[in-house]
Amino acid sequence: MLVLSHDSQVPLYTQLYSQIKGAILSGRFAADSRLPSVRDLARQHLISRNTVENAYLELYAEGYIYSKERSGYFVSPLSPDDVLVSPPARGAARETVQETQCLFDFHPARLDAEAFPERIWRKCLLDALHRGSRDLNHYSEAQGEGTLRGEIRKYLEQSRGVVCDIDQIVVCGGLQHGLDIVAHLLKDSRPVVAVEDPGYHLARSVFANHSLEVLPLPVLDEGLDLRALQDSRSTVAYVTPSHQFPMGCVMPIANRLKLLRWAREGGNFIIEDDYDSELRYHGRPIPSLQGLDPDGNIVYSGTFSKVLSPALRVSYLVLPHSLLPAYRRLFSDYAPSVSVLEQRALAQFMEQGHWERHVRRVRTLYRKKHDALLRALARHCGERASVIGQGAGLHVVVQLHDTAVKEEELVAAARHSGIKLFPFSTTCVNRKPEEGMVILGFGGLSIDRIEEGVALLFQSQQKRISAE
Amino acid sequence: MLVLSHDSQVPLYTQLYSQIKGAILSGRFAADSRLPSVRDLARQHLISRNTVENAYLELYAEGYIYSKERSGYFVSPLSPDDVLVSPPARGAARETVQETQCLFDFHPARLDAEAFPERIWRKCLLDALHRGSRDLNHYSEAQGEGTLRGEIRKYLEQSRGVVCDIDQIVVCGGLQHGLDIVAHLLKDSRPVVAVEDPGYHLARSVFANHSLEVLPLPVLDEGLDLRALQDSRSTVAYVTPSHQFPMGCVMPIANRLKLLRWAREGGNFIIEDDYDSELRYHGRPIPSLQGLDPDGNIVYSGTFSKVLSPALRVSYLVLPHSLLPAYRRLFSDYAPSVSVLEQRALAQFMEQGHWERHVRRVRTLYRKKHDALLRALARHCGERASVIGQGAGLHVVVQLHDTAVKEEELVAAARHSGIKLFPFSTTCVNRKPEEGMVILGFGGLSIDRIEEGVALLFQSQQKRISAE
Repeated sequence: MLVLSHDSQVPLYTQLYSQIKGAILSGRFAADSRLPSVRDLARQHLISRNTVENAYLELYAEGYIYSKERSGYFVSPLSPDDVLVSPPARGAARETVQETQCLFDFHPARLDAEAFPERIWRKCLLDALHRGSRDLNHYSEAQGEGTLRGEIRKYLEQSRGVVCDIDQIVVCGGLQHGLDIVAHLLKDSRPVVAVEDPGYHLARSVFANHSLEVLPLPVLDEGLDLRALQDSRSTVAYVTPSHQFPMGCVMPIANRLKLLRWAREGGNFIIEDDYDSELRYHGRPIPSLQGLDPDGNIVYSGTFSKVLSPALRVSYLVLPHSLLPAYRRLFSDYAPSVSVLEQRALAQFMEQGHWERHVRRVRTLYRKKHDALLRALARHCGERASVIGQGAGLHVVVQLHDTAVKEEELVAAARHSGIKLFPFSTTCVNRKPEEGMVILGFGGLSIDRIEEGVALLFQSQQKRISAE
Repeated sequence: MLVLSHDSQVPLYTQLYSQIKGAILSGRFAADSRLPSVRDLARQHLISRNTVENAYLELYAEGYIYSKERSGYFVSPLSPDDVLVSPPARGAARETVQETQCLFDFHPARLDAEAFPERIWRKCLLDALHRGSRDLNHYSEAQGEGTLRGEIRKYLEQSRGVVCDIDQIVVCGGLQHGLDIVAHLLKDSRPVVAVEDPGYHLARSVFANHSLEVLPLPVLDEGLDLRALQDSRSTVAYVTPSHQFPMGCVMPIANRLKLLRWAREGGNFIIEDDYDSELRYHGRPIPSLQGLDPDGNIVYSGTFSKVLSPALRVSYLVLPHSLLPAYRRLFSDYAPSVSVLEQRALAQFMEQGHWERHVRRVRTLYRKKHDALLRALARHCGERASVIGQGAGLHVVVQLHDTAVKEEELVAAARHSGIKLFPFSTTCVNRKPEEGMVILGFGGLSIDRIEEGVALLFQSQQKRISAE
C-alpha cells in the first residue's frame, strides 16, 4: 500500500515514485505483476492523473517498470540478488519441488485423480449458480441447505442405517470442523475422550486443541478394547467401528451392543466416525452404530472426502437429540461453513442419482486397485510380511516380519526412491509403534503404479537389508 | 435402511415388504421419492432380484408404491393423517413461509441480489474445475491455496496497507472460523478479551464458546473507549477500527497509536476485524491498523462476505509473526476449510482484475443506495431522528428522538408491515440498549424498496404514536 502525505514538502509524485521503487526493490511488488492503472491510482489517492503519470514515467525511465500496449505498466523482473525475496515465495517454490519429486504417493487419503465426476459436477455447479445467484446476497441456512440435508438423510437411512431427521444434521467443512462443534457441545461436562490407539491423528488434534482430556486406549482385533474402556474414566468414546483407522477391523455386533450399553448406562457419548464405509469390497456394507440406538448419545460423522473429493471440504454430523439444545444455544449465531453453491451442487448430484452411481463406480475402481496391491505385495514381499485390514477402504497395513526394520529408515529409504509413505507411528500415541508396520494407501495410484511402487519399495528394502 | 436376516423364518421378501411398508407409513420414506432399483437393492443385500421384485409387487398391489415406466418405483403420497410426518419437513416449511412474508429486509448483512458477478464467476469456477479436477483427489494446502494467498496479500498491501507475507495468511470459512483459530492460539494465556459494546455479536459468541473471558467495553465517538481498555484487565482487544459495528465510527489515528502502544507495552493482542472497509463512500479508504505496526501483535481479519457474497464462505486471517509458531504447532494436522475450487476461482477472479473492478462497481451501487436511504430518512422522519454512522458500509443507525419507543414494539410493528429489522439490542451486552435505536441495512433492497420501506416503517410508527 502506498501512503501519501499531502502535507509533506516532498512532491506527491516523488513520494509515489520512491514508495513504488522501494516495494519493487524489496520484492513486495512481484516481478511482472501489473501496477494499478493511472486512473485507478489517482482516484484511490485523490490525486491528479498527472501526478501518477509522472511517477510512473520516472520508474519506467529507470527500468523499474515496463509497459505493454493497452495493458498498462508491469514490474520489471530484477536479478534475485538485488531483491529481498520474501519468505512466502521461497516457501511456495520449496513445496512444489517436493511434490514433483514424489513418484509414488502411498498416502491413505489419496483418491484416484481421474475418478472425480468432472462433467456431471460441472453441470450441477452451473445449475446451482444459475438458479441461485440471487441467493448469494445473504447467509444461507446455518446447519446447511435443507435440500442437501434431506438428501444426506435419505442416503444415510438407505445405505448406512442411520435414523435421524434433518434437524439433527449439520453440514460441516470437514471432519475436523465437525469435531470442533462436538468438542464445544461436550466440553462443559469436562469429558475424558477415549480414542483408538493406533487411531486417527487428525481427530486427536482437535480434542487436544479444545483442551479435552484425551485417553488413548488399545485397539484389539475387534476394534477399541472395550474392557479398557469400561475400566477407564472415559465419558466419550471416539471410534471408527465400521473400518477402524488404520487397522481396518470391523467392530462385531456383540461389541457394538456392549459399547452402546456403556454409553447408555453411564450417560456417556459415542462419536462414530463413519469415514469410508461405502468402500467395502466383499460382503454387505456394515450398518452404522447409530442405527442400532437412534435415541442414544451417538454423534455420527460422515464425509464426502473419501469417495467424492477431500478438496471440496464437505462433511456432516448427525447430532443426537440430547445435544440439540446445546447446539442451538451455542451455535445459533453462527453462519454456515460450506459454500451454498457447493451444497446445492451436491444436493442435486445426490438427488439425481449421481452419488449412488458414483459410489458404485469408485467401489469397483478401488476394489481393483486394492486387489492389485494385494497381488503386488504377494509377489514382492511374499513371506516377508502379512497384510492387515484388507477388503475395504483406501489402504491396508503391512506388517513386515523383520521387526528390526526401523520406520524412520524405511520411510527415508522409500523417499529416496521417490516413494511417499505415511508413517504408521503418526497414528500411535502410547502404543509402542511396531517396527516394520507400513500403511499403504492405494487410492491415488494407478494399478500399474501400485505394482511398480510396491516392487521398488521392497526391492530397496531388500537391498538395504542385504547391504547390512 | 433395510436390515434383512438370512437366518429368520420369515421369508426375505416378506421382511423387505414389511420394512419398506413401515418406512412409508412412518413417513421415513418420503412421498414420491424413488425406491432403489430392483437390481441395486438385490446387489446391496446379496439377495436375488426375484426376492426384491416379489416384495415390490406386493407393495404395488396394496398401493404403497407406484411405478413409472422406465423410472422404477416411487412412494405413494398418503394422507398426512396416516403418516407420522417427521419434524424436519414441518420445520423447513415454516421457515420458507416466514421468508416470503418479509417484503423489506433491512438486515445489515444483506447484499444486492443482482450484484453478484455471475457470468465472470462461472468462468472462473469452470476454469478452476477444468484445470484442477485432477487435484480434487487430495487435500489442498492447509492454509489455503498459494495463488489465492498471493492475491490476497497483494490486495491487502495495495488497498488496506497491510504488510505481510503469504505464510501469515490463513484462508478461512468465514469470520467465525477465523476467530475460532485465534481463540485456540490465544487461550493458553487465559486471555481477557475486550469487545466493543455495542459490537459484533457473532464474534462474542465465538469467544464465549471457547470459554474465554469476554469484557464488553463502551464505544465512544471514536470507537472503543481506550481509557476503559487501559483500566481493564484485558489482554486482547477485538476491534472494528475502520468502521465500528454497528455505530459506524472510524478510530482516529491518535487513538490507533494509543491502542498499538497498549498492545506493545503490555504484550497484549489486537484482533482487527476489517470486515467492510472497501465500502467507503466519501474520502479516502481508512488504512488498516495492522499496517501501522506490521511487527506488532495484531491479528488482521478480512472477508469476502461484504462485497462479493456471504454465502460463498471465504475469509482470511493475517497472523502476526508472534503467533505463527503456535499456529503451526496446533494446526499442522488440520485440513483446509474452503473448497479448493472456490479458492482457485477466487484467485483467478482477483488475478484477472475482476475483484478490483467489482469493488469499484459495488461501491458505486451501495453509495447510491446509501444516499437513497438518507434521502428517504430525511423525507419520512425528518426532525424525529438523527442518523449515525453514515458514509460507509451497508447500514446506518437511526436514533429516534422519541426515546419512549420500545424496541420490541418497534420490531413487532415493523414485522407486521412486512419489514424485517435487525434489533439494535442484539449488538449490546452491558450497555442499556438505547430505546429508539434502529439499524437499517440497505444492501439487499433496491432504491425504490428503500424509499418504500422507510416510508412504511415511519408511517406505521407514526400511526402507533398517534393511536396512543
